Amino acid sequence: MFDFLMAYKKYDPASKSLLEIAILYPGPKAIFLHRLAHSLYKYHLFFLARFVSELNRWLTGIEIHPGAKVGKRLVIDHGMGIVIGETAEIGDDCILFHGVTLGGMNFDPVKRHPTLGDRVLVGTGAKILGPVKIGSDAKIGANAVVTKDVPSQATAVGIPAKCVH
Amino acid sequence: MFDFLMAYKKYDPASKSLLEIAILYPGPKAIFLHRLAHSLYKYHLFFLARFVSELNRWLTGIEIHPGAKVGKRLVIDHGMGIVIGETAEIGDDCILFHGVTLGGMNFDPVKRHPTLGDRVLVGTGAKILGPVKIGSDAKIGANAVVTKDVPSQATAVGIPAKCVH
Amino acid sequence: MFDFLMAYKKYDPASKSLLEIAILYPGPKAIFLHRLAHSLYKYHLFFLARFVSELNRWLTGIEIHPGAKVGKRLVIDHGMGIVIGETAEIGDDCILFHGVTLGGMNFDPVKRHPTLGDRVLVGTGAKILGPVKIGSDAKIGANAVVTKDVPSQATAVGIPAKCVH
Repeated sequence: MFDFLMAYKKYDPASKSLLEIAILYPGPKAIFLHRLAHSLYKYHLFFLARFVSELNRWLTGIEIHPGAKVGKRLVIDHGMGIVIGETAEIGDDCILFHGVTLGGMNFDPVKRHPTLGDRVLVGTGAKILGPVKIGSDAKIGANAVVTKDVPSQATAVGIPAKCVH
Repeated sequence: MFDFLMAYKKYDPASKSLLEIAILYPGPKAIFLHRLAHSLYKYHLFFLARFVSELNRWLTGIEIHPGAKVGKRLVIDHGMGIVIGETAEIGDDCILFHGVTLGGMNFDPVKRHPTLGDRVLVGTGAKILGPVKIGSDAKIGANAVVTKDVPSQATAVGIPAKCVH
Repeated sequence: MFDFLMAYKKYDPASKSLLEIAILYPGPKAIFLHRLAHSLYKYHLFFLARFVSELNRWLTGIEIHPGAKVGKRLVIDHGMGIVIGETAEIGDDCILFHGVTLGGMNFDPVKRHPTLGDRVLVGTGAKILGPVKIGSDAKIGANAVVTKDVPSQATAVGIPAKCVH
């Protein structure tokens, strides 16, 4: 838990204290409630899991489907308008900004949402759609629309997103 | 009502039950409250209509002006950040994702917002601005910015949006 | 105060009364609460300032860091999903639509967010990132991503944003 809050502190030196982050920031609240919803989901308590997820959305503006797999020390900055789908997978030490979507294009009960590696940064308003893979250390630019795989360490921007140097 | 909830169920096979959709999903709540606001608006109870619309926005993150005309079986998925203007018109069986705007560019008391045909799908973050017409069965891509008419069955993507095949 | 509400009325002739704007619109509420948060911030009451700012975000969907400097008669239309950073500066008579971000790219304790001149209009979903300057009377298009200065009276659109005529 301390580890998790330190990730925010390290990422955002503008924050004044760990207390401020733990109590006032929407990101840590959203992840805490998602951990609860995900546990309920694993026990097939789908209605209750969804209830926690919708409460989370109403409190924080961040919508994470109870089924989504979220790695360690995820930093969600600002967060309003984020949507993360049921079969999305997020690695460790990723950063997601507000308005990001990890969404689906077609219905597939097994896998229809993106997979993010470790230390991926997704800029505000970016939409990653379909069962694509975003390699570790990749960066996705603001308002980009990604529907194809992005290799490790690459930076993808624009509509449709293209890798830049 | 049953018809309406079935549209969600049909669209989103991931949903676990009709009860979940009716009670927990923000989309059906937003449309139900809009129907109420629109009735008040038609009786020229503008303040009360706007109050219901703002309550709707606070509860669901979806802002629909009381004057907007919404067709049958509209599916709003996720919905956070949607803005639908006063003179917007939406046909039957459309699907709108979160972050979509049906907005205005210039003030015209009669018609300044878009008109959508039937079975139109508008992707997340897309902005359709001005009194443009989107033909039936058209698709608008994620984060697209549309300021011109889009013909029936076309798919428009990018900024400014262009039709693709 | 009256001056401020009249700016909304003048901008949005569709509004039915000043009472409707003052009580029901999220924009004026967000600016009023920001004025309070900014005062607390100036007295170094950072926790309390942030508390007011987060309450503001929960009530209105508009996130303004307590440190941000906001000019006179700012009109925030719809507003859901707006994020304004700590060192952002906004001139007089500007208009911001929903989904706009005045954000940062790198950490700099002194200045890492944009500076807007007077009468700047920022379209829905546009992201202005870094310590860039947007000249007076400039317009930023919907969903544009701006990371360089924009001269006075120019209109910038697209990803990355380019000036058009």
